[in-house]
Parts: sequence; structure tokens; C-alpha cells
Amino acid sequence: MRILLTNDDGIYAPGLRALRTELLKLGTVTVVAPATEQSAAGHSVTLLTPLLVNEVYEDDGKTFVGWAVEGRPADCVKLALLELLPDPPDIIISGMNAGSNAGINVLYSGTVAAAIEGAFYHRTAIAVSLEYDQKIYDFPTAAKYARQVIEQILAHNPAPGMLFNVNLPVLERGPIRGVKVLPQNVSPYSEKFDRRVNPRGRTYFWAGPDFECPDPHPDTDVTALNESYITVTPLQFDLTDHAKMEPMKKWEWKVE
Amino acid sequence: MRILLTNDDGIYAPGLRALRTELLKLGTVTVVAPATEQSAAGHSVTLLTPLLVNEVYEDDGKTFVGWAVEGRPADCVKLALLELLPDPPDIIISGMNAGSNAGINVLYSGTVAAAIEGAFYHRTAIAVSLEYDQKIYDFPTAAKYARQVIEQILAHNPAPGMLFNVNLPVLERGPIRGVKVLPQNVSPYSEKFDRRVNPRGRTYFWAGPDFECPDPHPDTDVTALNESYITVTPLQFDLTDHAKMEPMKKWEWKVE
Repeated sequence: MRILLTNDDGIYAPGLRALRTELLKLGTVTVVAPATEQSAAGHSVTLLTPLLVNEVYEDDGKTFVGWAVEGRPADCVKLALLELLPDPPDIIISGMNAGSNAGINVLYSGTVAAAIEGAFYHRTAIAVSLEYDQKIYDFPTAAKYARQVIEQILAHNPAPGMLFNVNLPVLERGPIRGVKVLPQNVSPYSEKFDRRVNPRGRTYFWAGPDFECPDPHPDTDVTALNESYITVTPLQFDLTDHAKMEPMKKWEWKVE
Repeated sequence: MRILLTNDDGIYAPGLRALRTELLKLGTVTVVAPATEQSAAGHSVTLLTPLLVNEVYEDDGKTFVGWAVEGRPADCVKLALLELLPDPPDIIISGMNAGSNAGINVLYSGTVAAAIEGAFYHRTAIAVSLEYDQKIYDFPTAAKYARQVIEQILAHNPAPGMLFNVNLPVLERGPIRGVKVLPQNVSPYSEKFDRRVNPRGRTYFWAGPDFECPDPHPDTDVTALNESYITVTPLQFDLTDHAKMEPMKKWEWKVE
């Protein structure tokens, strides 16, 4: 099996390294990932600047890892599929992200966007993220769990273009209680900005630390992660609100 | 009516200016928009750098327009709602974008992401984009049409959080044939990169010019735009593929 591995934390991130180690048990792994951290990059792509690439090797200087790209996660997947990989991958894995990508954070996530980009190209793609607490991560253990979930997805021969979002709970909170298939939570987060003034008198704002989801819906990715379950959410990228289409067609539309 | 106007082309973009002129016929308009062009920013947000803001006035130096933000379209909406606007807006308009945001481009679009961000906060939000041909735009005429479509949407008192994606066709191709409510096209685009080598021997790639959608599905935004219709698509931001949930729940899941 040929695996393309990418992420949004950058090619040297420990979460990617741990996941690569596990994925090497399943097949050949080629990494095409951002050269630098691209957290919260969403599905941005690079149109205005060139995408520099660099070959990356393991610390021995001999074992080829893949390519670092001075761009966004979605750029990496495009470049991998169209230019860099000699053969098309059987599967695209994105992660393992430092921090969960659940609820509406799915839309901010560069990790998930890279997987969606793979689905645009009719590749099976899986995003993998690890929730944190106090910024402590046990990536090797999490990657072992993630690899098992990936194997269980692949055991069902998902159709090309199928897309999965896998989140692992905070491991330090206690043992994992199981794996649940659940939808994305869509209730809002509460956010804060910190207002400051710079030495030249200009106002600026810092986005506050990681925001809270005060009222998550039951039986969603966010609630199950809080209860120490691994969550798997099948995703799609048609944003059309189909239920609203028919009534809207009867509205009076006219321009002149 | 209080209108928040944003975009992804930047606060000084002619498409925003033209739309602001028309929206002033409907109510008070406050602009909170990126200081610089943020095309293809997707739903990225700024976590690692501060968001500088600057008050912007009309050329007379007296009439307040709004705030320029050194950030992404979604940052602008967050800052507007949480920090900058004295009163919450009744509606959020994003655009008018130079270039359509139809098909899977909806996911790359900063224009649409700003509207989605508004929907996260339970605001009615409308993204407006103008398709181009040879980079010729008649923004004032397009803004007049867009304002009419916005009025027709508002005539139905959309529920808070309802989200609309409006695209206008190339105006130079001929008269507009009407307004159609249609889903987002989901078929892939064909893309190309241009591979080059810099003077230091490093390989880099330029994303090719605007890509083609070779096989759009009939009765979608992309096909109707090609036929000179204005398209309106109701959007939502739950990416869950609900149809795939039930079978997946029966899969064997286990980690150890």
C-alpha cells in the first residue's frame, strides 16, 4: 500500500513523526508536508507566491522521508498528486495533529482540509488529530491507536474519495473507552480577544487561548471526546443546504 | 438595518466599494475587511500573530468606512462581532469578490468563509461573487444586481444563521438570463503547476492560472453561471456525511 502522509503542524512535527512510524507497518509512506506550522490554515491555498520544495531525509541523511513545501496543507496534497509522487497513493493520511479537530474546528483545520483536498482527487483520505490537555501529548501511544483505527477503516475497502475525520481524546485523562462513529458538533464556541495598543499607538488584538464549546450537542464528536472515546466522522464537502433548496426555488427572483 | 460588510480581496478592493455603495441604500454599513488581499484564504484564522486594526475613512477623510484588519476574512468577522461593532449587525455581507466562488472553490474561498463565520455566530450571512472573463469587471452594475438579490433574500426574513452563496455570471457575455437556486457543483477541477528552479538550485512551483472544471454536473452553480444565470445556493457547515453514518456504526471498532 502506498501512503501519502501530510499534516498542518509541519514536516518536523512530532505528531507526524509518530504517525509515520506506525504507518510504515502498513506500507510505503511518502511525506509531503508544510515546511512550517500551518495551524488553522483551513482550506487556504497558495496562489500569489511560489511553492518552494525541499527533499527531507531521516537524521541518518540517507533514508528519504519526502518533501517539505513552503505552503499550505492543501498545497502539499495538490503538489504530491500532480507533481511529486511517482505513483498515485492508495490512501492519504493527514496528521497526527496536535489538538483535536472536532466541532466547527473542522472548518478551520488545515489537517482536515488536506484530507478534503485528497477527496477532491477521488482519493480515500483520513484526518487524524489528538486532543490535548496542558499541551502534553503522548504521540507514540496515540499513533498506535490511530493506526488501528486506520486499519479498521481500510478493512472495509472504502470507495475512492471517501473521507474520514478521526479524533483521539486526551490520553492522560484515563483509558480510552472505545471508538464511536458520530457527527460533527455544530454548536458555537466562545472566543475572546485581548485588546492591546502598540508603541506607535495602533490597536491590535490577540486571539485568546483555545476556545471553549460551552454547549456541545449530545452524541457528537465533541461530547464523545470529552468522555474519552475515539471518534470517527465520515465527511463530505458539499456545503449545499439541500433541505432549504425547494422552498427557496419558489421565492420571487428578479434582477433588472 | 445594520449591515456588516467584509470580503477577501481587501478593504480597498473595487468590488467591496461598489457593493458598499449599493448596500448604503438598504441601511447603515460598517466595513471590517482585510487590509490586504486574502484570496484563497479559505477558513483560515490567525492564531500566531497579532491582528492590527486601522480605522478607514472615505477619501474626504471624514466619512467613517470601518476597520482594516491585518488578518484573514474570518478574523474580520470575529473581531467585528466580538470587539469592533458597537451593535450587532442584522446581516453580514461578504464580497463582492473578483471571481466566482462556485463548485469546490466554495471551500477555498475566503469570501464564503467570512459568511460561514457569521453563521457560526447565528447571523444571517450572504457571500457575493462576480465571475470574470479576461479580468474585466463591471462592479457597479454587478453590485446593483447583487443588491436586488440580497433584498429578495431579506424579503423572506431568513432565520438567524441562514447562509447564502450568491454568484453573478460574466456580465460581458450578454444579458443576465435570471436567478436560479442551485446546489454547489462537486466535480473536480483540473489544475496545473509550473515547475521551475531558482538561482540557488531549489525547485519551486507556481500554481497555474485559474483552473477549469471540465465536467460540471448539470443543474449546479457552475453550469448555470456558464449559461449567464445568477446563482443562489443555501449553504450549511455540517461536513458530516450523514448517509454513511449508519453502516459505519456496524463496522468492528477496537483499539488496544
